[in-house]
Amino acid sequence: MSKVRIISEPVANVPWQERPEGLKDAPVWRYTENPIIGRNPIKGVARIFNSAVLPYGDSFIGVFRGEQVNGIPYIYLGRSKDAIHWDFEENKIQFVNENGEEYQPQYAYDPRLVKVEDTYYIIWCQDFYGAAIGMAKTQDFKTFTRIENPFLPFNRNAVLFPRKINGNYMLLSRPSDSGHTPFGDIFVSESPDMVYWGKHRHVMGKSSEWWQSLKIGGGAAPIETSEGWLLFYHGVSGTCNGYVYSIGGAILDIDNPSIVKYRCENFLLTPEEWYEERGFVANVCFPCATIHDSESGKIAIYYGAADSYVGLAFTEIDEIVDYIKDHSVLTQTDTELGMR
Amino acid sequence: MSKVRIISEPVANVPWQERPEGLKDAPVWRYTENPIIGRNPIKGVARIFNSAVLPYGDSFIGVFRGEQVNGIPYIYLGRSKDAIHWDFEENKIQFVNENGEEYQPQYAYDPRLVKVEDTYYIIWCQDFYGAAIGMAKTQDFKTFTRIENPFLPFNRNAVLFPRKINGNYMLLSRPSDSGHTPFGDIFVSESPDMVYWGKHRHVMGKSSEWWQSLKIGGGAAPIETSEGWLLFYHGVSGTCNGYVYSIGGAILDIDNPSIVKYRCENFLLTPEEWYEERGFVANVCFPCATIHDSESGKIAIYYGAADSYVGLAFTEIDEIVDYIKDHSVLTQTDTELGMR
Amino acid sequence: MSKVRIISEPVANVPWQERPEGLKDAPVWRYTENPIIGRNPIKGVARIFNSAVLPYGDSFIGVFRGEQVNGIPYIYLGRSKDAIHWDFEENKIQFVNENGEEYQPQYAYDPRLVKVEDTYYIIWCQDFYGAAIGMAKTQDFKTFTRIENPFLPFNRNAVLFPRKINGNYMLLSRPSDSGHTPFGDIFVSESPDMVYWGKHRHVMGKSSEWWQSLKIGGGAAPIETSEGWLLFYHGVSGTCNGYVYSIGGAILDIDNPSIVKYRCENFLLTPEEWYEERGFVANVCFPCATIHDSESGKIAIYYGAADSYVGLAFTEIDEIVDYIKDHSVLTQTDTELGMR
Amino acid sequence: MSKVRIISEPVANVPWQERPEGLKDAPVWRYTENPIIGRNPIKGVARIFNSAVLPYGDSFIGVFRGEQVNGIPYIYLGRSKDAIHWDFEENKIQFVNENGEEYQPQYAYDPRLVKVEDTYYIIWCQDFYGAAIGMAKTQDFKTFTRIENPFLPFNRNAVLFPRKINGNYMLLSRPSDSGHTPFGDIFVSESPDMVYWGKHRHVMGKSSEWWQSLKIGGGAAPIETSEGWLLFYHGVSGTCNGYVYSIGGAILDIDNPSIVKYRCENFLLTPEEWYEERGFVANVCFPCATIHDSESGKIAIYYGAADSYVGLAFTEIDEIVDYIKDHSVLTQTDTELGMR
Amino acid sequence: MSKVRIISEPVANVPWQERPEGLKDAPVWRYTENPIIGRNPIKGVARIFNSAVLPYGDSFIGVFRGEQVNGIPYIYLGRSKDAIHWDFEENKIQFVNENGEEYQPQYAYDPRLVKVEDTYYIIWCQDFYGAAIGMAKTQDFKTFTRIENPFLPFNRNAVLFPRKINGNYMLLSRPSDSGHTPFGDIFVSESPDMVYWGKHRHVMGKSSEWWQSLKIGGGAAPIETSEGWLLFYHGVSGTCNGYVYSIGGAILDIDNPSIVKYRCENFLLTPEEWYEERGFVANVCFPCATIHDSESGKIAIYYGAADSYVGLAFTEIDEIVDYIKDHSVLTQTDTELGMR
Amino acid sequence: MSKVRIISEPVANVPWQERPEGLKDAPVWRYTENPIIGRNPIKGVARIFNSAVLPYGDSFIGVFRGEQVNGIPYIYLGRSKDAIHWDFEENKIQFVNENGEEYQPQYAYDPRLVKVEDTYYIIWCQDFYGAAIGMAKTQDFKTFTRIENPFLPFNRNAVLFPRKINGNYMLLSRPSDSGHTPFGDIFVSESPDMVYWGKHRHVMGKSSEWWQSLKIGGGAAPIETSEGWLLFYHGVSGTCNGYVYSIGGAILDIDNPSIVKYRCENFLLTPEEWYEERGFVANVCFPCATIHDSESGKIAIYYGAADSYVGLAFTEIDEIVDYIKDHSVLTQTDTELGMR
Repeated sequence: MSKVRIISEPVANVPWQERPEGLKDAPVWRYTENPIIGRNPIKGVARIFNSAVLPYGDSFIGVFRGEQVNGIPYIYLGRSKDAIHWDFEENKIQFVNENGEEYQPQYAYDPRLVKVEDTYYIIWCQDFYGAAIGMAKTQDFKTFTRIENPFLPFNRNAVLFPRKINGNYMLLSRPSDSGHTPFGDIFVSESPDMVYWGKHRHVMGKSSEWWQSLKIGGGAAPIETSEGWLLFYHGVSGTCNGYVYSIGGAILDIDNPSIVKYRCENFLLTPEEWYEERGFVANVCFPCATIHDSESGKIAIYYGAADSYVGLAFTEIDEIVDYIKDHSVLTQTDTELGMR
Repeated sequence: MSKVRIISEPVANVPWQERPEGLKDAPVWRYTENPIIGRNPIKGVARIFNSAVLPYGDSFIGVFRGEQVNGIPYIYLGRSKDAIHWDFEENKIQFVNENGEEYQPQYAYDPRLVKVEDTYYIIWCQDFYGAAIGMAKTQDFKTFTRIENPFLPFNRNAVLFPRKINGNYMLLSRPSDSGHTPFGDIFVSESPDMVYWGKHRHVMGKSSEWWQSLKIGGGAAPIETSEGWLLFYHGVSGTCNGYVYSIGGAILDIDNPSIVKYRCENFLLTPEEWYEERGFVANVCFPCATIHDSESGKIAIYYGAADSYVGLAFTEIDEIVDYIKDHSVLTQTDTELGMR
Repeated sequence: MSKVRIISEPVANVPWQERPEGLKDAPVWRYTENPIIGRNPIKGVARIFNSAVLPYGDSFIGVFRGEQVNGIPYIYLGRSKDAIHWDFEENKIQFVNENGEEYQPQYAYDPRLVKVEDTYYIIWCQDFYGAAIGMAKTQDFKTFTRIENPFLPFNRNAVLFPRKINGNYMLLSRPSDSGHTPFGDIFVSESPDMVYWGKHRHVMGKSSEWWQSLKIGGGAAPIETSEGWLLFYHGVSGTCNGYVYSIGGAILDIDNPSIVKYRCENFLLTPEEWYEERGFVANVCFPCATIHDSESGKIAIYYGAADSYVGLAFTEIDEIVDYIKDHSVLTQTDTELGMR
Repeated sequence: MSKVRIISEPVANVPWQERPEGLKDAPVWRYTENPIIGRNPIKGVARIFNSAVLPYGDSFIGVFRGEQVNGIPYIYLGRSKDAIHWDFEENKIQFVNENGEEYQPQYAYDPRLVKVEDTYYIIWCQDFYGAAIGMAKTQDFKTFTRIENPFLPFNRNAVLFPRKINGNYMLLSRPSDSGHTPFGDIFVSESPDMVYWGKHRHVMGKSSEWWQSLKIGGGAAPIETSEGWLLFYHGVSGTCNGYVYSIGGAILDIDNPSIVKYRCENFLLTPEEWYEERGFVANVCFPCATIHDSESGKIAIYYGAADSYVGLAFTEIDEIVDYIKDHSVLTQTDTELGMR
Repeated sequence: MSKVRIISEPVANVPWQERPEGLKDAPVWRYTENPIIGRNPIKGVARIFNSAVLPYGDSFIGVFRGEQVNGIPYIYLGRSKDAIHWDFEENKIQFVNENGEEYQPQYAYDPRLVKVEDTYYIIWCQDFYGAAIGMAKTQDFKTFTRIENPFLPFNRNAVLFPRKINGNYMLLSRPSDSGHTPFGDIFVSESPDMVYWGKHRHVMGKSSEWWQSLKIGGGAAPIETSEGWLLFYHGVSGTCNGYVYSIGGAILDIDNPSIVKYRCENFLLTPEEWYEERGFVANVCFPCATIHDSESGKIAIYYGAADSYVGLAFTEIDEIVDYIKDHSVLTQTDTELGMR
Repeated sequence: MSKVRIISEPVANVPWQERPEGLKDAPVWRYTENPIIGRNPIKGVARIFNSAVLPYGDSFIGVFRGEQVNGIPYIYLGRSKDAIHWDFEENKIQFVNENGEEYQPQYAYDPRLVKVEDTYYIIWCQDFYGAAIGMAKTQDFKTFTRIENPFLPFNRNAVLFPRKINGNYMLLSRPSDSGHTPFGDIFVSESPDMVYWGKHRHVMGKSSEWWQSLKIGGGAAPIETSEGWLLFYHGVSGTCNGYVYSIGGAILDIDNPSIVKYRCENFLLTPEEWYEERGFVANVCFPCATIHDSESGKIAIYYGAADSYVGLAFTEIDEIVDYIKDHSVLTQTDTELGMR
């Protein structure tokens, strides 16, 4: 039993590989068969990456960013027995609006998938006269009902918390600008009903550590633990040859997640492998989901690699929490509350 | 009696000058004694501009952007008998938060002032880890209670409608980015309570007319009329020597203001006078408020000039509505609804 | 009789003012009643500037850049008895294509007007999926027949020579890019028929003199003289607060105008007056035409001022040629031929 | 016999590999021995890429971009028996001008090679006070006579049609700006004599498909077919880590190639292999030539890879035409004619 | 006698005007006859601005930035009886190198003039393969001997202290980059001999006050006082229409001028007059020198206006020191020492 | 014995591999076991690259850029028997200031290591309110004493000569700006004492050869030879997908190293291998040190690869000097002296 408790349903068949012999000092390790999803996985889709998965009954389900061969991304549904090998539906997900009429955005990418109470929410980035947060809900993965633009543009990387806090839904997002934004902090927003949002607060910003010195953005849905909300997020460094996306970790206050309790100054994973360093966008590790087992403390992290592949990495709850706490460095903007 | 009805309280002492002899074709004309507020109007304040006023009892009240001599703008309260000559309080407005504790943003600029039911709302731009909408309410102009960040950054030029529509508060804003944003459209948002906001919709964007081809933003609070919501807004042109801000006009659907009924392809006023062309930011006419009289149809437009002065201009309801309708050019994004 | 001969028809009523008493060292002097065209000169036109004129019978005719109140520029016809006071047609010039069908570009600006043999050519800048050279011809100033895109984008400031050279039409232009181009040299092109163009050659580029260190562009149609083609052009300096446009002078080889014989290192006129320093684009003196009298040697230069007005300035042929020769500095790219 | 006819001489020894087993949905497939030209292929030349080839007698001839070890590119002649293994002349091609005197541009890159009637034309990019189109002709591949700058800068990716249309030579090009241009459309120009060019028209621009949303440019010389001119071109996507160049396909009207009949919304080939994703400029597939056999319908596409290698790919005429037609999406600017 | 002592020779004929009646709160006031130097002051010089003056015997001497009519700036010598009306030498200053051979930089601008012991030092900005500090010394204003590049590029706004400190010469400068630098702090450097420089330290940087939030730079030579070194410097704000240069004030530690004792959060003078807001570079007040009288405490500030004129303003030592101290706001980088 | 003499101590155990069979025309060849330092070499350090080594007694010592897992680089000490396999100290080097107190910069990267007389100097890049040159000295590799900021920011790539010239220390550096500087030339500075620096001179700039057309910077400490100072430096090309760093070579005058005697127009090594083309910053070969043996003429070049690895390459003194002389191209700015 882990020292730190994960507060969620157990997932006995969480995908897993033990830490490699001889690997020291690294809080997270890669799946040796990475990437788990290769090029041209579906007819008309060139690359799948930046995608999110969940346990679903005995098996697993996920929403996947599929970059069509016309260059336009949409969201595809996939199912898996082992959370490693995935079968995809050939057609992208078709949404309906509140009236049940067909609705499809002009593009949709970087989906996250979160279950709150008995509803599954898909949250992605789409065009709303600029890049903005798209949202839909489903209970059966057959009908996906859009929630009309819950946020103004320009916003991305929205991640819902898996339960209400103090009676309100809570959502992380990363407002910035159009295009390849060179700045961006993580904020949290509240809603009584998933329709109207307010009481926005700043969670944390870029930092003096170079791997996250350009911008940051929410990654996987926060994991509830006895230490607080465990957040895997991405941090971006700006080099003369472009951006480098690494995976970072932080722990947010359980009741007021705009307060950062611990924030690891070190990246947890940074591009080193060919499938992370070479591809449509080189040097990207972009976490979007975890599968975690509250019994064993095992955590499987799903991340997009080089905007071309899906990679899988592993850690354990005690180890990762210790690592984050041992290397925690907080700044004023991580902890100040309601000052601005 | 005007042909087009203004739906609001009469304001018998609306400031006014008749159209100059010989001025033809121009829908709006300037006050001959402009600027009405000159340099260094208050101790420690170098310039007042981009400010909003309202009738208040028999006289007038306003919130004014005062650029302190340290370069930081804050909001100052002013009072006037004739809406032309203004007395300012020497200290900037001091806000309190929801708990009644003192709260002051790091800066505050471009305030608007709107009365809905029996409450006055001040809406401005402030720092919320980026330029964002600040908001406060008052009933007595003595206690100003902040509403905690109702919108995420980066957003500016928020303008409240003077009454609820279909039971919700409605607010225009112009999301964009940090800094001197080179793009921006007008959106509308709804709220049941002024705290939580959603159902955001696009109202209108920049256009092919060069005076508004870079970006646009809401100006004065919309005027309710028998033809719809009359909106004075600003449009920006980008020249090799910087931006030029002109005043434009549109009429929005009375029940669904995300629909533009008429939009004038011509600017209504563009920088031509020395106080508009020369100053801290040259070439700026930036409307922030109107005083209008539903009896006579007279409309006085208050606009910031060159980020240095306050200017005053006049029009009449029938004339301005005819002019906007006669020169209306709509684009798809002005009229499409809920497509994105 | 002047020492340097102007080779063209005499124009007895060339507009003229003598050099002001006490003005020394300046090769060009302004008309004391400048600007000769003020704001809002025609209904629906906010500003006239960057325009070209010619003698026409006993009087004068011209094509004028009229910036409509919707911000879109078009070309307007004007007539004058004295070349100072102008009457404009209220409607913009309507072109026809080669088949006589109506044709109107999406915008048209900075027109030049040149007579070659018995035909008048109007050349301007228009949209051809990017800023490009528009061209039309007329013999009666009633029918204006477009010549379909004679040049690819992105090109501006095209100026035709007033006669064929070695049997071919010759035209100066300034290829650059879209937008507010930060670079640009003057090239010359040849055509047997005004339809097909080739044998493009470089004439001259920006220089180390700061007033023309960013870019240059052809101005008035070259004046044929016994010393070569006298060219008034514009040079641009880039300051931290935008571009400054000055007027420069050069003399091109009479038979091979890609060779620069003399090029004045000093500007001839630079913004100093309020109508040049203040306006839609501050700090612009932009020459587009001359009226010159081969009898007296008098030259009247028409220039756009601050993208808001038309200014008039004067010089004499002997004086200006001497000044250019006395201050001539040539660079390799001014004189090298066919090397690239 | 193919359904769609290629209208050209048969080339029995067209290089060829059958479609790989199991490859579905892909209209084009790579040569398994790619790259066909590796690093440091000639003394003093570091990389050969972006090069064009033609059948020549029983064998093949080509003009190759050779990036010298001083970084300056020039054009090298190569010969091959099988169009896969190439022997290069050690010295770059030496041009002469119209007078037979030696002429060499300051650099020369991205050559295309097209035979019209009995003359071979080489067209490349060179310095003409900015990047511009260079042109030369030869009949024996011994004497290469320059045609003096037929186009103004800034222009690249010029591709000649292999026969006159309506009596005129026709040439595609991509005007843009200096440097790493972030925009660019394909235009077509006419000439009676290869010296003077005019009647320029827009062919097609970038599109909403992300792989070609930044700019496009002509690639291989158009192939005449019974369906129209088959054009392989390149489309560019702009990512946060740089540009990605893919290969696209379109079919132009046989008599008026400014009209696009079909344009494939999908890329035909995009960087996926190490030699395309890694090199001097990562993520480049840049088509410059085809060898095609009108008997069998086989088409071999030559493309530059990562600005470091030459790659070879294959398709068949029926398949590729069907694919383009099946996935054709046209925009207004692809089809409008003479409107601007 | 002033409360604060100025430690320098008295200058009985310091130029002076009393504070205008009714002007309150302003620490500095303008000369009513500004500008003191107008356009075209010398043959071949279009504008004089950003220039420095000193008492010299009974009268005054100065070095002036003269912008030649070819746009290239050089330094001109001027003399005056009253420090208001100036006579200029027609030829720019001719320097010699250490060997007495003629030396002239490619351009020279923004000169300062400081006397240390019995030598006058002129320090300016010139080309040293980039903008850098030029330096020369003279004892008679006849021979000006260059000190070969004492600093690397890119550096500007160098200001010498009027005496050695702890045995070393001390010099403020503003390293930044080439071009219109968008950043820059003030540093101090030491030298035993004016040839070799080291022990560089940071003095102060831009601040959160908007008028100096983009960059700052040394202005007039520091005035030694009983409170420390009184420094007038310039601060720059970046608006959407360009930079605005204001005058600021600080007091540095007398023995270690890298320590800021007081720094005024308010600007002392900001562009408000036509000659400051309109010109070659609008919105510039750029201080370069003072003349101050230790007897009376009067201080005359010379400043460039709009890169077109020289302006004159006045203050008194007690008043200005009080104002700076009363409004002093220091940041960590103003006061930390040797940490970086 | 080599034809060209290296003037330094012999290093019998210089690391070495013979030129590969069949490799022609290349002046430098890679070690076949590259990279010699891989990922995650020390606990808490993700990558070592851009590092410098020296012979030290019988073995070797070096200072290494260690990129910590928090993204911040510092300098680490390493020792090696064979100069190929290195043992690193686990803690970064701790400096002391002139008073012996602990001093640590905020970051430190790209160290060079040079012995002059009996002292070892480490020179790196650090924050001094901007990127600047850090410097320390040691005699025992136990105590490292900082020399307080000897140069102003913004400066990088400082390289000390291994002996005094004409009695002064000499140092190359590359002033530029903050961030990923797009420009930069090599300058040389003199000092009598390593504290005060002056008489700065330009050595050489970027050139028309594309591989060094963006900027250049000093690499390894110059090697004294009978032909002059042999300098390995880096040159940078700017592509649409980022910078490419190659290794170049030049020979400077032995007594006045601001004079370039020979400069090779060709790069000596450019990224071609996976460890040079793929990594944190793709396409980087960045030389920082050599080990060279004056007996055999063997030279081992240490270079950073892709900001991720250390690579090793070899050449011989006669061969490299001949190659540089045979391909030498000089420009005016390489040879002019004291003109600016």
